[in-house]
Amino acid sequence: MGAPLIAVDWGTSSLRAALLDAAGRVLEERSAPQGILAVPPDGFPAVLAAACRGWEGAGARGVLMSGMVGSRQGWQEAAYCPCPAGFGDVAARLLRLPDLPPLGRVAIVPGLRCEHDGLPDVMRGEETQAFGALELLGLQDGLLLLPGTHSKWVQVRGGRIESFSTFMTGEVYGLLRRQSILARTLPESHDDELDRDAFLRGVGQAREAGSLLRSAFGVRTLALFESLPAAFLPSYLSGLVIGDELRLLQPAPAGGPVVLIGAPALTLRYELALQSRGIACRRVGPEATWRGLWAIARTVEDFA
Amino acid sequence: MGAPLIAVDWGTSSLRAALLDAAGRVLEERSAPQGILAVPPDGFPAVLAAACRGWEGAGARGVLMSGMVGSRQGWQEAAYCPCPAGFGDVAARLLRLPDLPPLGRVAIVPGLRCEHDGLPDVMRGEETQAFGALELLGLQDGLLLLPGTHSKWVQVRGGRIESFSTFMTGEVYGLLRRQSILARTLPESHDDELDRDAFLRGVGQAREAGSLLRSAFGVRTLALFESLPAAFLPSYLSGLVIGDELRLLQPAPAGGPVVLIGAPALTLRYELALQSRGIACRRVGPEATWRGLWAIARTVEDFA
Repeated sequence: MGAPLIAVDWGTSSLRAALLDAAGRVLEERSAPQGILAVPPDGFPAVLAAACRGWEGAGARGVLMSGMVGSRQGWQEAAYCPCPAGFGDVAARLLRLPDLPPLGRVAIVPGLRCEHDGLPDVMRGEETQAFGALELLGLQDGLLLLPGTHSKWVQVRGGRIESFSTFMTGEVYGLLRRQSILARTLPESHDDELDRDAFLRGVGQAREAGSLLRSAFGVRTLALFESLPAAFLPSYLSGLVIGDELRLLQPAPAGGPVVLIGAPALTLRYELALQSRGIACRRVGPEATWRGLWAIARTVEDFA
Repeated sequence: MGAPLIAVDWGTSSLRAALLDAAGRVLEERSAPQGILAVPPDGFPAVLAAACRGWEGAGARGVLMSGMVGSRQGWQEAAYCPCPAGFGDVAARLLRLPDLPPLGRVAIVPGLRCEHDGLPDVMRGEETQAFGALELLGLQDGLLLLPGTHSKWVQVRGGRIESFSTFMTGEVYGLLRRQSILARTLPESHDDELDRDAFLRGVGQAREAGSLLRSAFGVRTLALFESLPAAFLPSYLSGLVIGDELRLLQPAPAGGPVVLIGAPALTLRYELALQSRGIACRRVGPEATWRGLWAIARTVEDFA
């Protein structure tokens, strides 16, 4: 526990790396656009070495990575760990890679797998964020939401992830915003600022409509009859899509406030939507990933 | 009522025209890829004349058109007729265009407008299909479904369209099928044959999941774990999307069987989905458009 750790969050479209001190504090953080899809099959060691340049002399215990780097398209496939799963379960199933001499040990945190409604579901990277948030908040139970391209709802009990469910919220928003007939009536610039009233109107409408398939066409008719200025329509659509996801949330989820994990710009929207329904929540930023990797490393003997 | 009628269904991506005899029977039918988006602003009379070539000597009463030709991007904008609206209301608001000498009178059936959940909704063309189906089936009341890119649910009472609701079902299916992450695991060819079991499994899953945002990711995990052969995944996804639309349908809608109107390949899917929920339905083909235009013309003095 006396040495720094190099923590890496390696996703589809970007790589983030941090040098953490023995107490898990971030000494330095970096990011690069080299997501796994931009790396040739045998190029992973070199990209990692480049991302960590200058940290070779830090005396780190090694490099612990999470995210899509452990997928079939990544460095090497790390078999999914079945739920329920806690820190210990994941730590026991780290995928060890050959040492990278200047950096030391290298390992990948496996993703999780569960079943709901008779179907498999999977995550890679969010388990680490979830563990980090639990650690930061000192929680053992609760409902965690990780919004994004593929939003994850994570049910935690006794410090273990019992089950989770994926919503294609961010991706469907992008498709409707940019590729559908609605794109014709929305502003061309995609630099959408949040208008809270329009957003919350969308959230409310999502509940009324009962299906995004039904509510989405309203963006077109509101534009057609000029009932809402075009500049506010992206916020309204965002409210419809996020509202459709949150429509399924019980009014008072067991285990205290819902924990929102992710970039502030996105978790703020979820917070507004939940508050409008009287559901308490708290927010944790992307630092949850570093805390999660640090906490997992702590439970592994030769990483600790 | 003694003369033929030229009936035209002019949509966004295609134009269909039919020469109907005095009794409304189709004497000849044609289609062309010249949807309104492919016609320059002043090019409509010439495209119509070309589509009707050879019918100049048929002694037609004139040309009656429905569809997006009456939109702002069409020949000339026909103001929406407010609901409730019947044959007579629509007929009284025909948009008259200048006569085209060899063809005679030319007019456009206006679309309809209604409000639900505090939002406006609109249709152009479907009102004519709906009126045609009522005429063909001898109905005055019921729930009509017109599946498509933008599916319409139409509530009819006493021969008038009381209200309707639009679902972006076909468009969202296309976006998920071709533009989303799911496209990577689906067969590249888009010539998707229907597999009934996979489709109905999707319909069932749509009800369980409660939101398409949630159910759609299952297409990816089913592929990941090879739980469903890739060739069946498009049918499964189609079931998820259509199932999400039909999730909102009451188990026993008032007014008898649901009337499905449209191309057989599509109404068959809706029929399968409804039958799986024990909801009775009957199907009417695209000939409903011709019957609708004929029936509207009949109620207009100088078209009759």
